Order: sequence, then structure tokens, then C-alpha cells
Amino acid sequence: MIVILKKDADTHELESLTSWLTGEGIKVMPTVGSHSTILGLVGDTSKIDINLISALDIVEDVKRVQEPYKAANRKFHPDDTVIEVGGTKIGGGNLTLIAGPCSVESKEQIIGIAEAVKKSGATILRGGAFKPRSSPYSFQGLHEDGIKLLLEAKKATGLPIITEIMDADQLPLFDDVDIIQVGARNMQNYTLLTVLGQIDKPVLIKRGMSATYEDLLMSAEYVMSQGNPRVILCERGIRTYETYTRNTLDIAAVPVLKTLSHLPVIIDPSHASGKAALVPPLAKAAVAAGADGVMVEVHNDPAHAKCDGPQSITPEAFDSLSKKLLNIKGSL
Amino acid sequence: MIVILKKDADTHELESLTSWLTGEGIKVMPTVGSHSTILGLVGDTSKIDINLISALDIVEDVKRVQEPYKAANRKFHPDDTVIEVGGTKIGGGNLTLIAGPCSVESKEQIIGIAEAVKKSGATILRGGAFKPRSSPYSFQGLHEDGIKLLLEAKKATGLPIITEIMDADQLPLFDDVDIIQVGARNMQNYTLLTVLGQIDKPVLIKRGMSATYEDLLMSAEYVMSQGNPRVILCERGIRTYETYTRNTLDIAAVPVLKTLSHLPVIIDPSHASGKAALVPPLAKAAVAAGADGVMVEVHNDPAHAKCDGPQSITPEAFDSLSKKLLNIKGSL
Amino acid sequence: MIVILKKDADTHELESLTSWLTGEGIKVMPTVGSHSTILGLVGDTSKIDINLISALDIVEDVKRVQEPYKAANRKFHPDDTVIEVGGTKIGGGNLTLIAGPCSVESKEQIIGIAEAVKKSGATILRGGAFKPRSSPYSFQGLHEDGIKLLLEAKKATGLPIITEIMDADQLPLFDDVDIIQVGARNMQNYTLLTVLGQIDKPVLIKRGMSATYEDLLMSAEYVMSQGNPRVILCERGIRTYETYTRNTLDIAAVPVLKTLSHLPVIIDPSHASGKAALVPPLAKAAVAAGADGVMVEVHNDPAHAKCDGPQSITPEAFDSLSKKLLNIKGSL
Amino acid sequence: MIVILKKDADTHELESLTSWLTGEGIKVMPTVGSHSTILGLVGDTSKIDINLISALDIVEDVKRVQEPYKAANRKFHPDDTVIEVGGTKIGGGNLTLIAGPCSVESKEQIIGIAEAVKKSGATILRGGAFKPRSSPYSFQGLHEDGIKLLLEAKKATGLPIITEIMDADQLPLFDDVDIIQVGARNMQNYTLLTVLGQIDKPVLIKRGMSATYEDLLMSAEYVMSQGNPRVILCERGIRTYETYTRNTLDIAAVPVLKTLSHLPVIIDPSHASGKAALVPPLAKAAVAAGADGVMVEVHNDPAHAKCDGPQSITPEAFDSLSKKLLNIKGSL
Repeated sequence: MIVILKKDADTHELESLTSWLTGEGIKVMPTVGSHSTILGLVGDTSKIDINLISALDIVEDVKRVQEPYKAANRKFHPDDTVIEVGGTKIGGGNLTLIAGPCSVESKEQIIGIAEAVKKSGATILRGGAFKPRSSPYSFQGLHEDGIKLLLEAKKATGLPIITEIMDADQLPLFDDVDIIQVGARNMQNYTLLTVLGQIDKPVLIKRGMSATYEDLLMSAEYVMSQGNPRVILCERGIRTYETYTRNTLDIAAVPVLKTLSHLPVIIDPSHASGKAALVPPLAKAAVAAGADGVMVEVHNDPAHAKCDGPQSITPEAFDSLSKKLLNIKGSL
Repeated sequence: MIVILKKDADTHELESLTSWLTGEGIKVMPTVGSHSTILGLVGDTSKIDINLISALDIVEDVKRVQEPYKAANRKFHPDDTVIEVGGTKIGGGNLTLIAGPCSVESKEQIIGIAEAVKKSGATILRGGAFKPRSSPYSFQGLHEDGIKLLLEAKKATGLPIITEIMDADQLPLFDDVDIIQVGARNMQNYTLLTVLGQIDKPVLIKRGMSATYEDLLMSAEYVMSQGNPRVILCERGIRTYETYTRNTLDIAAVPVLKTLSHLPVIIDPSHASGKAALVPPLAKAAVAAGADGVMVEVHNDPAHAKCDGPQSITPEAFDSLSKKLLNIKGSL
Repeated sequence: MIVILKKDADTHELESLTSWLTGEGIKVMPTVGSHSTILGLVGDTSKIDINLISALDIVEDVKRVQEPYKAANRKFHPDDTVIEVGGTKIGGGNLTLIAGPCSVESKEQIIGIAEAVKKSGATILRGGAFKPRSSPYSFQGLHEDGIKLLLEAKKATGLPIITEIMDADQLPLFDDVDIIQVGARNMQNYTLLTVLGQIDKPVLIKRGMSATYEDLLMSAEYVMSQGNPRVILCERGIRTYETYTRNTLDIAAVPVLKTLSHLPVIIDPSHASGKAALVPPLAKAAVAAGADGVMVEVHNDPAHAKCDGPQSITPEAFDSLSKKLLNIKGSL
Repeated sequence: MIVILKKDADTHELESLTSWLTGEGIKVMPTVGSHSTILGLVGDTSKIDINLISALDIVEDVKRVQEPYKAANRKFHPDDTVIEVGGTKIGGGNLTLIAGPCSVESKEQIIGIAEAVKKSGATILRGGAFKPRSSPYSFQGLHEDGIKLLLEAKKATGLPIITEIMDADQLPLFDDVDIIQVGARNMQNYTLLTVLGQIDKPVLIKRGMSATYEDLLMSAEYVMSQGNPRVILCERGIRTYETYTRNTLDIAAVPVLKTLSHLPVIIDPSHASGKAALVPPLAKAAVAAGADGVMVEVHNDPAHAKCDGPQSITPEAFDSLSKKLLNIKGSL
């Protein structure tokens, strides 16, 4: 951490800052210039609150050198985290295809889609039971019944399942769920993240619509700092001024997150674009950029899906897409 | 709602769409052009899911004419909502000053600040007990003890209090809290909003960092659709590419939200800027733009505040600011 | 175009609007609802100024159905535009590799790089002579001498060249340049675009940092409406709140622009990321998403490049990348 | 400037960097930590290209401490710049009201509006002759004739005039114009800025839609570094994800720019909002926040204005607004 002092910093206050930092195990190394004085802080500054220092009268600015996340940081854990779930591995060079409908609607629907996507190479089934909808008047998912149907599809196909949790109170319903998803709108629901850090189950965290890479990694840190190391990062588009697409897929998130962290990175091209026709090119781009997998909304009848129909592709389109993705993966 | 059909829309599917809409009480009025056909949907379309229609093969695009929120909509409730709490009125031409520390730290601190800001004209005391922090290693607030201290300050000064809830489970602790705050990161925590819609207490909702005006009003709608009409909207800055300030205060939110909705609009210049020196000019701008109030972080010793020190102003600065704000209000 | 009228729209003004539109060759079809009246405008509305209608007292809102660009619109020109330059074809299924240094520095440098990238498969040489730099104190390029050196490299290698123009006055120097580039900062320099519409040379337009797809296509329209149909679109990252990368590559621009328009789409991963390590994954993503080519900054000695060193890759890295890109192209 | 070195930085390369910097007059002060080494650069680093250092193999990151602008920097010029033009003063505590139509349409129109706004307290007349329009099919202004009409209005009313230049070639037409405006889309047209730095006339620079405060100040620096110190900064809204308003007025730009720079700061609420109803509240906010003036689009017949009708207010509305603005100014 680097502290830039104001021009006429009070010596007494400077001493008080220095002695506090020293007490926290930080070595303070000053560089005195004609225009300004800089303090280099050496040591583990990840637990120092940058705002506490910024607030001091003598301080003009503070800049971080070291990342504020440790458990999620590749610098301290150079090897890829590989997460094994239901016989499939996420991370470490594998390509994981996660597919399924936006929301679970009926037994026939979810089992039918599960069988189809399994045949096409998907190794994990997705499906929403608790749906965060921007309107209170929209379909909110089948809740407990949705999870039961997912479990039936798991039994029928052997596919592990991933589904979204919206509140810590729902956790007892997730006992047999394989991966718990935290949605973009809950990425900074720290109560929820803390609870998920105390269970023994992989957690997939979607990047919030206006979250930086660091914000996302800090949310992973919330889970990991509680003792749960199995976190999967998911880029699903960020909000920008462009409105033609539902969100803007930040494809650079793949190489950047994989550089900064050892956690697997999954791309969700469906929410990123909001349009079925864009899902295949974005999924291909994700694989080419080095993603550990993609999560795609697949529906047998998009025109009558209870949610997100416009961005769902058919099982036939998914079948054709998954072949292409394997080709690209092979060509890298 | 307007539905733009694709050029060669299948007649059969069009009939099926029309009959479904008619069944929902919507009148369908087509405009046939040489390049495209447009359907005008007449009636109450607020409960029609725009995505269901967009997903149809025959549809090129759908555009809303009517807003998707009803309870929060000024069109259906022309008069300002005025919320009375602890003897003070929010909305309807009043100027409400809410002040207090980022987080409650001790009895002396919170009572001292409460007395000071009351003397300067604040009518509501703010203070955080549950603090959503981006780092798991930062101070997270005093939790239950923080609320107890706030209640002591309320008793000592008579000021009603506002404090943030982070999870529905915490609700029992909020029995004597006057206004419950939903933070920006929880603006789309629909589980929490739904629970808050079932209580008899005003709820202040902060706009999410990437939430549109409509998103914010839909969050208000979540609370109101459950039966709680006492919602206060709060603009606290949005995330943009500009990094000099912590967020970008969207001052137009004041006149826009007051046009679209009848709910009171409060500005939080502290989180919007992240810098104490910017709080007074932004608070003044808020009042001049017609805000129903401002919520300002005030700390007796910003340099040693346990959070948000850089954006806290001193009681003396608040005293001088509140006088200016009343002057401006009087000059409008 | 759809015009939504205010609730109590004055009949006289409505008649006056209707008769004006009819005079412009537009058919007006009203849909009268209980809450609002909608006018469907049928005909060629691309030359109707949407603002003129929005400004009317009786109008609540206006929404476009038809795109405001015609020459660049795929609806009216279904076939891909293929641009032939110096023996190479851009668009129509070809993969064009454009490579070269940020700025031309010396004869040895530019010829050396040109030979290297040609050997690796590049078919067009890029290099800056006029450099738009955010600081007046930074190196601004070799100007006329830079173009002369580019022409020497063209002569030496046979590679056609692309270089940026900053002002219409510089045009005489571009006589032997093969493709003229308009930079992101000049994307809405309409004086320049208009002049470039009157020459017989391909123009590559970079998307502005905050330009929508429509804005970019309208800039293409400026050139095309003057008679020059040979326009190439280039996505080079947009400005978002994320600051880890220089810009955010909007990879969806590839399939979206190719859907909306028949013009070739090139990706510039160097400016999009600002970091050499990110150039290969982003270039691969671009090809997988269907781009017609990539434009990459290559420098023999990035650490001593006069500009954009951090985002330049070496000729060796480019050689390895170009092989991968061809593999991916082959696997699609 | 602070240079953060990579963990195993090559000693030879480090020496080479150090000796180069020393040669440029910069003192290099290292801070050696266990995880990383930091170099503090002391001296005038405003002319050091940050990218040149970032590109080095041994460098992990570079952070600026000193601003890259000098002429525009308040640190080196503590006193407000006051610009006198046609008997009125801009900056230094004065409130300047600039008003007039989006575009000059006819002699009657411009003189009529000029007389009206003068009566209401405007001291400068605005009006567009060269109009940058996003569509090549929209009205582009009266060009030379427009400037002639503005000069007639100046003669008739005595008001100094401000109008926009789009290209350096147009400069001869601006001989009798009092203030030359550079539009948001040309904020980084460095050719134009450089030419305007060589004339003896105030230049108002509008902030680009995605320009940071630093970008805007660097554009001012382009003009000032050529010898023209009379620059006025203008905030006119930035592009964000919110689409209800045309742009998002960044009201914090007022106190921030006035802290960073000594140049006057003007707010344009018309372009910022795009809606006439929002112009008064935003103009009031600007004055309350400490702006040196506002620039407002006023049209005698907004519904028939040739451009920007929806955001133009009538002379009557301007009259009422200007009274309010003076009241607010007086109350600060």
C-alpha cells in the first residue's frame, strides 16, 4: 500500500500513523520529494482498511499495491482449483457444459431437457426454482417443488444439478443440490455469502451487473474466508450504456480472472446477451478465450418458456453448439 | 405495449398470440405497413411479461408504453406520499435532514453525534449496526448491540432512527427502529423486499449501483404490492467510468423520480461522492433540485471512524451545511 | 416509428401532425386505448427527425421501429460487403490479419516488423503516423515522415497499409495509403467522415468509447451516404466502470454488427485490453465469435516502443497467435 | 509516480530504468518489501509517459501521484481564472447565464430570442451554426449564414456570442465570435484543440460523453500548452446505462473540477437531460453546487425547433428560471 501525504503534513500526526502501522506489523518506508512525500507500506496489508487511512487529515491519497483478497489470489495459490462434483471436474483444463431451462416448470419439461442436454455432452443440469424477477407480478419459480423436480431429473439422468439460492433460510432445501448458485443481484449479499462459506458444497457466484473483478473476488473471499474453498466464478455480462443486448459480455473476464485467481471461470452467454441468436457466438468466444465452461439456457419450447424465453436455445441448437465448442477447445 | 412483428409473421401464430392476449383482457390493434406490422396492445399490460412475447418466433421487438409499476406510479396516485415518523414528515414539500455516523461505535459516540445533529436541525438519526462491507476482513458493525445503542440515542434525544437491515432474519431486532433501510447492494434482494412489504414501518430503499429508475421503482413495487405503502426512495450515486468520486451522483434522479412516482426522494451525498469535501456542494444541489431531504454521514472524529471516515463531515460542518440548505430551500 | 400521445392530446395539434407526416409520405395509423393513443407511422421514416416529433406538446414518447441507417443496413443489402485491397479480401468469410506497430518509428523498425508479420500470415500492415495522444506532452507520431516510411514498408513487402487520419487537411498525404482509419476519438467527427465519403478508398471506422452499435452504424452511414460504400467497422473496446483493462472488449459487437449490417467487422484486441498478455485470448475470442479479422499491435521491442508498449506483442508471439487463429477459424 | 516492480525484477534492467529516469531529472527512491519492491519517482513527472514504464518487463504496475496536467492545475495556479468577454466576467464568483437556441434558424428567430434572454438576465448568447448531428440526414445548421445571423443578433443586443466549431478549417468564419465552443464529440480532436491554442479568444470545451475529469483537463491542457490560457470547462452529462435522460448530469463535476483546476466551470442542463422539464431543476442544482454559470437552450417555439426541441425551454420559462437562479446564488 502506498500513502501519498499532503504537502504540509503535520509531523505529529505522521508519527501517530507510523506507530499505528508499525504496531500492525507493517514497515513504513518514506520517500521524501519536493512536491510530496510518499510512504511505502511493506508487509501484509490485506487486512488494513484503506478508508481508515484515506480519512486522515495528512493523507492526500492511498493506493493499493497488494490485492485485498488472499484465499482467492493466484499469487498465494499458483495451481488451478479443480472442483469435482458428481463425477465431473470443473477447472484445470476441462471444458464443463452446464445446460438447462431458466426455470423448472414440470417433471416432463425438466427430465426431457436433462436427457437431451446430457446426450449433447452437458455434464451438469441447471434449472431455476427460486427466480429473482424484477417485477413482483412475474412468475417467481416453483420454489420447493422446483427443487424436487430437479432432483427427479438428477435421479433420471445422473447429472449433478446447480440451482440458485435467494436467501440463507432456503438452505435446508438444498441438501441434495450439487452446486449452489448465487445470482448477480445477490453477489454482495454478505449474509448469504457468509452462510455459504460454512457449508461443504461448491458455490458458483455470478458477477454483479456493476461489480469489478476485485468485487467479485472479494465475494469469493467472503465464502472462502469462512472455510469453503470450492468457489466457481461466473461472468454473465455487465451493465453498460449499450442496450441492444441485455448486458455486455466482458470476455476479458476470462483471462483476467484466471490470472488473478486460481478459481474456475464459467461464462453464461444467455444472460449476457438476452438473445438466443447471440448465445452460440458468445459461447464459442468464451471457449476460445479459455473459459473453464459455459452455462447455457436450453428450453424445449422457448416461445412458451415461463421465463427468459428470448435467450433460450433449443436442445437441437445446443447439440450443434456443443459439438462446435469441443472443436474449438481442441483447436486451441 | 407495442409488438413489432417480423416481416413474414406466420398467420397461425399471430392468431394464437392475439387470442391469448384477448383472453388476458387486452385489446389488440394492428397497424399493417409495407415493411412491418405493429400490434398496439390496449388495456392493463402491467402484468404481461414482456419476455414471453419477445420470445415468440413471429415477434421482432416489443416496446412498453405503460410503466410496469402501478402502486409506485404517480399516474395512478397523483398526490405526494407523505410519511410521518416520530413527529416529522417526509415528503410533501418538507425538507428532512437525516444525519449520523456510518456505523454506531459506542454509547458516547452515538449520543454525542445525535445531540449535535439534532441541535443543527436534523430530525432523523442514522447509524449503521449491520454494515455490508466489501471485505470480509473489515469491521462489520456492532449488530444487535449497535441497534441497542441507537435506541439509547433515540431515547436521549427523541430523534427517530433509521438503520440498515441486511437479511430478513434480523427483523425482530428492528421492532423499535423507525425506518428500515435497504442498502444499494440489497436493492434487488427480493426475499428481503417481500418481507418488508408485510410490516407496518417505513422502508427507505437505496438505488443499486447499476439500477435504472425503473429498477428502483420496481423494488419499491415489491414492498408496496405486499401491502406496505410507506416507501422512501434514496439516490446515493451510480457506478460509472469516473473513478475520482466513489460513485456518480445522478442528480436528475430527483426530478425524474418525483415525476414518475409519488414517493419521497432523499439524496445521500456521502456515499455518492466518498469525499467529505464534496458532501456540502452535493447536498446543496440536492435541495435545489427539489429533493425531499438529504442523508449525511456525520462523525465527531472522521479520522478515526470505524468506516467511511473519508466521506464523513464533522458536526460543525453539518451545522453550517444545514443552515445553507434551509436558505436554499427558502429561495426556491 | 410509433408515437405515443399524451392522455388529453389536443385534436387540432394532432391533425396538424398527421397532415405534416402525410405530406412527408408517411401513413399514420392510430390505435386508441383507454389510457393512451398510439400512432403507427408506416413508410420510410429514416429521414424523419425523431426529436422534432418528441418536442410536440401532444406527444409523450416516440419509439423507432425502423433503423435510422439505410446504406449500412443488412435489411436492404442482405449480402456481405467484401472489400478488396492490395490483393486481399476483407469480409465474406475471409479472416484478415492486420498487424504492425502502434507508431512508425524508423525505417528499420517498420520494414522489420512488416516482414515478420507478413511471414506469420498478416495481409495488411498497420502503423501510426498521426497519433491522437491524450497528453500534449506525449510523442505525437512522425506525421508525413511516418507515412513515407509506411510506403517504403509497403514497397518492400507488398503489404497494403492502413493508417489513421486525424483531420481532413491531412488527406493529400494519404494518396498511396490503402485503407484510411478513423480513430475512436474521431468517430463522430462528421466533417472528417463527410470528406472520407467523397474519396475512392476503404475507410475503417473504430467504434467510439461510448458509442452504441447504432452510433457506429450512423458514422458508417455518413461515409456511405456521400457515395463511398467501402466501410469497415472496428470494435476496440468501450469504456465501462472496470479499470483493470484499458477498455472493455464488447465481443457481442461481432455477431450484432454482422446481423444489423453487411459491412465487415474487425476486432482490435490491443486497444481493447491495453495489456499484451490479454491480446491472444481476446483475438481468439474474436475469431470464434465470427469476426472478419483482427488488428493487432506488434512491436519488435515493446519495452522501448514510443507508444502503447504495454499492449504490443512481439513478432514471435504474433506468429504463434496467427497459427492458433487459423486453427480456430478452421474449427468453426 | 510510483513504480511497482515484479517479484524477481532483473537487476540489470532495473539499473537501466533508474539511469534513464535520473537522466530525465527524476530522483528514484526504492522501498524494498518482502513481497514487492516499489520505486518512488520524485520530481516533475508530468512529461514522463506512463505507458513507457508500464511496458517494461520488470514492472508490474505504475501509479501516478502527480496530475499529468500543469497549466490547468490549481496546484500551480491557486487563483481562479476569470475570463472577460464583451463586458461580462466568467469565473471568480460571478454567475454567467448563457442562453439561446440549439441552432440559428432565421434573423427574426435569433434576434427575438436574443432580446428575450437578455431581458431575463443572460449575458451571453448561444446558437449553433455548425451542428454535429448523429444522422447525415438531419438538419446540419446554416453554417456561414448562421454565423452571420448570430453577429446580427450580437449587434442588435450587444450580447457577446458563443458558437461551436467543428473543424479547424472553419476558423476564419469565427473572427467576430466571442467564445468558440468545442463540442463533446470533438473534445479529443487534438488537431482542432491545438489550432485553438494558437488564437487569442476564449474556448469553451464540453466534456466528452465518456471523458474522465482528467481527460477533460488534458484537453484544456492541449489548448493552454499552445499559449491560450482562456479555457472554460463545460459539463453536459455523461453516458451511463440510464436511458430515461439523454445523458446523466455529473453534478459533482462542479466541485471536483473547481478543486483540481482554476478554470471556470459551466453546466449545460439541456444536453445533460434532453428534456425541457428537467432543465430548471438541473440548472438550480448547478448553481447550488457552485457552478460559474449555466448554458441553456431557449427557443421561442420548441415544438418547431429545427433541432433539440424536446430539451429547449421557452423564453418565459427562462425568465422565471433566471430569477430563481439568482435567488439561489444569493442564498449560498
